[in-house]
Amino acid sequence: MTDTSLDVVGVGNAIVDVLTQADDAQLEQLGLAKGAMTLIDTDRAQELYGLMGAGIEVSGGSAANTLAGIASLGGKGAYIGKVRDDQLGDVFNHDIRAAGVDYRSRAVTSGPPTARCLIFVTPDAQRTMQTFLGVSVDLGPDDIDPEAIGQASITYLEGYLFDKEEAKAAFVKAAEIAHAAGRKVALSLSDPFCVDRHRAAFLHLVEGHIDILFANEAEITSLYEVEDFDAAVARVRGHCEIAALTRGADGSVIVTADEFIEIAAEPVEKVLDTTGAGDLFAAGVLYGITQGYELAVCGKIGSIASAEIISHYGARPESPLAPLIAAKLK
Amino acid sequence: MTDTSLDVVGVGNAIVDVLTQADDAQLEQLGLAKGAMTLIDTDRAQELYGLMGAGIEVSGGSAANTLAGIASLGGKGAYIGKVRDDQLGDVFNHDIRAAGVDYRSRAVTSGPPTARCLIFVTPDAQRTMQTFLGVSVDLGPDDIDPEAIGQASITYLEGYLFDKEEAKAAFVKAAEIAHAAGRKVALSLSDPFCVDRHRAAFLHLVEGHIDILFANEAEITSLYEVEDFDAAVARVRGHCEIAALTRGADGSVIVTADEFIEIAAEPVEKVLDTTGAGDLFAAGVLYGITQGYELAVCGKIGSIASAEIISHYGARPESPLAPLIAAKLK
Repeated sequence: MTDTSLDVVGVGNAIVDVLTQADDAQLEQLGLAKGAMTLIDTDRAQELYGLMGAGIEVSGGSAANTLAGIASLGGKGAYIGKVRDDQLGDVFNHDIRAAGVDYRSRAVTSGPPTARCLIFVTPDAQRTMQTFLGVSVDLGPDDIDPEAIGQASITYLEGYLFDKEEAKAAFVKAAEIAHAAGRKVALSLSDPFCVDRHRAAFLHLVEGHIDILFANEAEITSLYEVEDFDAAVARVRGHCEIAALTRGADGSVIVTADEFIEIAAEPVEKVLDTTGAGDLFAAGVLYGITQGYELAVCGKIGSIASAEIISHYGARPESPLAPLIAAKLK
Repeated sequence: MTDTSLDVVGVGNAIVDVLTQADDAQLEQLGLAKGAMTLIDTDRAQELYGLMGAGIEVSGGSAANTLAGIASLGGKGAYIGKVRDDQLGDVFNHDIRAAGVDYRSRAVTSGPPTARCLIFVTPDAQRTMQTFLGVSVDLGPDDIDPEAIGQASITYLEGYLFDKEEAKAAFVKAAEIAHAAGRKVALSLSDPFCVDRHRAAFLHLVEGHIDILFANEAEITSLYEVEDFDAAVARVRGHCEIAALTRGADGSVIVTADEFIEIAAEPVEKVLDTTGAGDLFAAGVLYGITQGYELAVCGKIGSIASAEIISHYGARPESPLAPLIAAKLK
């Protein structure tokens, strides 16, 4: 296959975010673990929504944010993810298309509602996420569009989705189609608890199917059950062609078999909301790779995209990233 | 009746806003009249939503914004307005309660969906509104809660709602209950086109039922079909006890039978989005009146509340207004 009309196709949880401001005392009162992503059921979602402050609804979902970022950078992307035929499904569908992403999944007409994530943003810009997954996790092998996968230079899989057996099978199917077409497969580990729950399956996936791995420090050390970052770096080198590892305000590193590239965090005047920081870092790196940039430049693009996101509320770019990158890379 | 446990009860269109950024060229391409509020039907709403950029959903509705503002100022308010039992109805219901407003209307289980307003914010901070009214305009006399009206010092009616015969009857019913209980009735004219369509009915309402009138220059001159502001002021003096008239960046005036009080616009560092400026001015003035402040102070509170709203996106306060007012009135 030589039709690489897409740079990246993402597979992930299609979610609408509900952002609200809260302080540490409120988090404690609600029994929330600060900074974490916790899965909640319908009842808890209703209870928490009833107790939380006024919200702002914006489309989210980790891989969807990454694809919106890639489009904003000038890349061509598609997205596979599941919504219901309800109002929040319409919102998700509208926003991802408006962001310039080719969204081919049709809204399903039965089952749970569209997923939503209640995000409590504290004055220190940290986000505490309570996710009601709804229909988003009912994604299986049949939802994987072989045409989109075959057309994309990189297939990007969101670790948050790697929970149900059907979704795991969908990931393997997507990876196999991509590799058969001579494409690359990328994965974001997404969450240390998710890694912890499915460590063996994640290790199998990473070792057998993944070319480009995204993780933060907590996730990569959880994956290999090692004490420190250096030990994790030594382990991942043997398995993935490229590992892009984020370390919050300390920047990030990109590791290959023979390279160890450190990337400084881009300075930000005022960090308002760190939601989407990792998603946009991935967007920059993936976009850079598809454009054939050196990895150090890919990392720099990731840092710049990430800095834009954390300087406002919400996890999708507010202003086009392409001119921002062009100006900063000069 | 002496139970004034509420300061203000508002009656209006319960709407969720969908905010998006656009430039003048896009407005022209979409055929939108800049700065205006235009009513649209389901088909046009779907068409426009498909063509517009990614959005942010926030609860809106003119009188609902005013009541959220009154609560943020420390006042006790209730709201009467109609939503469906759908996801946007849930959002509206959640946000107005979270804002501290007593929302007693139950979501209806049939009929059109919850209303939404597509708001295009241009770089000059002007908003162009395209409103799909949905179920919000199906409000009639039966929806007027006599208990809430009787408990409130002021009943505040939103002119946008004054379109269908049932809603007009609901306004008259609310005004009669309020006056029978010795309360005041306030009205916002909301929109010059709305005034133009229903001038005779509005004049009848203003002359027969309204104690406190809110209007901008375009609305008040349209109501009396006069050329200039001074002529409108002369006319309104004979009809309403208090008229609070806004003039955009030129500030506002409060007029009574023997007073003419000019209020300067509060300086704003950067005006981002003027959506809700009038709603929050009304919030400040109404709150001030219920607290027994002099009218000049009421106007000042309105200006400060209005300045907070136009310094960010969305028409509900982002930070509590009470401490802001306390600091500024010192």
